[in-house]
Amino acid sequence: MAHPVKIAVVGAGSAVFSLGLVKDLCLTTNLAGSTVSLMDIDKDRLDVIHKLGERYAGELKANVTFEKTMNRREALTDADFVINTALVGGHDQLGEMRQIAQKHDYASLHPLTGMGSITPAFPQFKLMLDVAHDMMEVCPEAWLIQSGNPVFEGTTLMSRQTKVKVIGLCHGHYGYRVVARLLGVNPDEVSWVAPGLNHLIWLTDFRYKGEDLYPLVDDWIATKSEAYWRDREANPDKYGPEDYMSRAVIDQYRRFGLLPVGDATRGGGWWYKTDLATRQYWYGPTGGFGSELEAPPRLARLARQVARIREVACDESHPVLEAFPPVKTSEQQVLIIDALTNDVTGQFQINVPNQGALLGVPDDVVTEIPAIIDKGGIHRIHVKPLPKKIMLEVIQPHILAMEWMLEAYLTGDRRMLLDGLLMLNTYHGGAQTKSYKQAAEFLDEVMALPFNRELAQHFK
Amino acid sequence: MAHPVKIAVVGAGSAVFSLGLVKDLCLTTNLAGSTVSLMDIDKDRLDVIHKLGERYAGELKANVTFEKTMNRREALTDADFVINTALVGGHDQLGEMRQIAQKHDYASLHPLTGMGSITPAFPQFKLMLDVAHDMMEVCPEAWLIQSGNPVFEGTTLMSRQTKVKVIGLCHGHYGYRVVARLLGVNPDEVSWVAPGLNHLIWLTDFRYKGEDLYPLVDDWIATKSEAYWRDREANPDKYGPEDYMSRAVIDQYRRFGLLPVGDATRGGGWWYKTDLATRQYWYGPTGGFGSELEAPPRLARLARQVARIREVACDESHPVLEAFPPVKTSEQQVLIIDALTNDVTGQFQINVPNQGALLGVPDDVVTEIPAIIDKGGIHRIHVKPLPKKIMLEVIQPHILAMEWMLEAYLTGDRRMLLDGLLMLNTYHGGAQTKSYKQAAEFLDEVMALPFNRELAQHFK
Repeated sequence: MAHPVKIAVVGAGSAVFSLGLVKDLCLTTNLAGSTVSLMDIDKDRLDVIHKLGERYAGELKANVTFEKTMNRREALTDADFVINTALVGGHDQLGEMRQIAQKHDYASLHPLTGMGSITPAFPQFKLMLDVAHDMMEVCPEAWLIQSGNPVFEGTTLMSRQTKVKVIGLCHGHYGYRVVARLLGVNPDEVSWVAPGLNHLIWLTDFRYKGEDLYPLVDDWIATKSEAYWRDREANPDKYGPEDYMSRAVIDQYRRFGLLPVGDATRGGGWWYKTDLATRQYWYGPTGGFGSELEAPPRLARLARQVARIREVACDESHPVLEAFPPVKTSEQQVLIIDALTNDVTGQFQINVPNQGALLGVPDDVVTEIPAIIDKGGIHRIHVKPLPKKIMLEVIQPHILAMEWMLEAYLTGDRRMLLDGLLMLNTYHGGAQTKSYKQAAEFLDEVMALPFNRELAQHFK
Repeated sequence: MAHPVKIAVVGAGSAVFSLGLVKDLCLTTNLAGSTVSLMDIDKDRLDVIHKLGERYAGELKANVTFEKTMNRREALTDADFVINTALVGGHDQLGEMRQIAQKHDYASLHPLTGMGSITPAFPQFKLMLDVAHDMMEVCPEAWLIQSGNPVFEGTTLMSRQTKVKVIGLCHGHYGYRVVARLLGVNPDEVSWVAPGLNHLIWLTDFRYKGEDLYPLVDDWIATKSEAYWRDREANPDKYGPEDYMSRAVIDQYRRFGLLPVGDATRGGGWWYKTDLATRQYWYGPTGGFGSELEAPPRLARLARQVARIREVACDESHPVLEAFPPVKTSEQQVLIIDALTNDVTGQFQINVPNQGALLGVPDDVVTEIPAIIDKGGIHRIHVKPLPKKIMLEVIQPHILAMEWMLEAYLTGDRRMLLDGLLMLNTYHGGAQTKSYKQAAEFLDEVMALPFNRELAQHFK
């Protein structure tokens, strides 16, 4: 029996994300009769997504109504669920930041998390808090599904500063499937547990039909890894731009005794990233996520996808179902909405305040953990502790960096940004500043960017 | 009424420290009839201190008996108090380490604390645990007064691994007296509170006859600091080798809103220490503690003091009271023994497991805090919290580094030492490693030192 709901999508102009959402919603009969309020500050992008949604529902004869608005409060009114996927400034600003970082010799500055990421993390914090505060006034009972980065820092911030019921989502954990296939087993028959912080999760449990897969991992490393890496180097086009079993991943496995999974495979330490050649050795031919070889084609690919979605949406003569076949994505947003609304209990990988689920993490810090979700809400599954070495070298430094970022943001203390650039190192690279001058000049240049005017005023 | 006790001194060959202890003991009539068992593995140094003690007590007609032994368990037998002042390898090994660090371009490696200090921190841990374990068997009711570095890490380790009643002591907090004099007020009429971790304490309360001294600090900075720094530069001999109101101290005050005091004034960040000229700007003409201008003369001065003590102790024709007048030191060891033994309640600055005294520090981490000590034991005085910025930028990173060191030590995991060199930055400088190769080669060279053979075996 269908329970219609109202879903508000903040930042609906994110075309690729919204296409997936449209498909999943139209294909979920449990949610028939629902209304989706698409909201964006970019009218043009909003129109495209709205048209796509209407046409998709129409062709599929799905009973989903798509509305559009540029007024956030209007979108939130009477919402049962709010999905926030907005990225302030979009990918262009990210790219500009990356260039300035490189100019100032910050090779391994992570673009979204860690203190190095002056922007867009702080504008994202502001937006997230604005959405959460609006929800407290307009739809206090609604669930907020945070789908834009930085999930870890932002979800922690919102859950501390407001009473909003928030769940942070990411898709990094699906990396276990790539590893399973490399090991030669069917991912659908694999069970796994990978707790941690968002972008920093570790396979504490990894089984195929109940049997521990780690012996197979050891065997793969001993007998197949070298040939695999050589093949990647010889035939880069055969593989994706990121390697979930790179030398960096295996080195981390040797250091910590567990496999990092998903976005965690992009980390390990700044010394894997000191220059392109070093990156290529550790992360494969593209140099891994965020390198000068990986980022431009990824952004170009994204731009082509966006252009394609626009083209299809606006070409009434072209059936959208043909361009984008009606197959559900692997994203969790709609499944979770369904589980919270209807009688379809499920297990998910979510980011919520820890509340004791992972030993050694304070209750009010958001961890990425498995949880059962049903009409009664979310039910954290307590996980076995991570090895102390991972806690000390990865989790705790990252929590410290998060607390540092949040305190800097909440106080507007610019010196904390500078100190962070000077002192913080995290698993994803950190700043690794070489001189005081370097950090101060980088910070000044970032703050002087036209799109950072508000940020510069906030950080006195 | 005197209550005689037995005091064991481990590492009694530390001549300067032991001279002070001999004086304080001989001048404390409450402890008349006490026995002091001097213990050292260096027979020659031990003989000198023993002779000094016997002659000092004899000339002063003090009722204190000095015994000597090279057997630690013999010294500990029936002890009421154990003072551990031993430094494995002594200052020569420290100097050798400092040279290797400089060769590998580690300008700001702190010699005793932080992960950079592979040695002698770890040999010190071993010795501390050996002493504490011996005490558990030989004199389980005795108090251990830990007087050798690293006090923070070592005292935390011993208090977790054994049931020993341990108090860590340092004299850094007396730095408030230098600051008071610079401000033109009588240090004897100053009240102060300076909690934190050992070597990282901050004046949260600083009063002259009850009036807050911070406005006077602000006035001094605005009107007198520049002239003072110029005078130090023009007349370095007029001042001591360390500046407790250096530009680095004032910069830290501006960053954190409180004055760091004592050994905390030596820190602030690696960027104050990138080369000698930078050090001299921030810490004064010698470049501050540990610089190539400060360390050699300090070690030479120490060597001269040691030679002088030896000379006097061995020259029976020379009255020791004349060479070393009977005036008590400002050290707390004997005062605390007196307070724990007799009816003389006192307030002290001690290092003990936090147990809630300083907000935000786990119970089982040793903090430096004020405490009332009497026959009933130690009574922590809860202090007001440190500013969140100090907790985030100073205290918590230092606790993390301590936990990292202890875990590395307890597991013998050599990779944790390397990772620490690569990733840890602390307030006292940290490693600030520029390349993986640099860290790996430095670690290898340190581990290959003849005096580190045992260490290299421990860290597989």
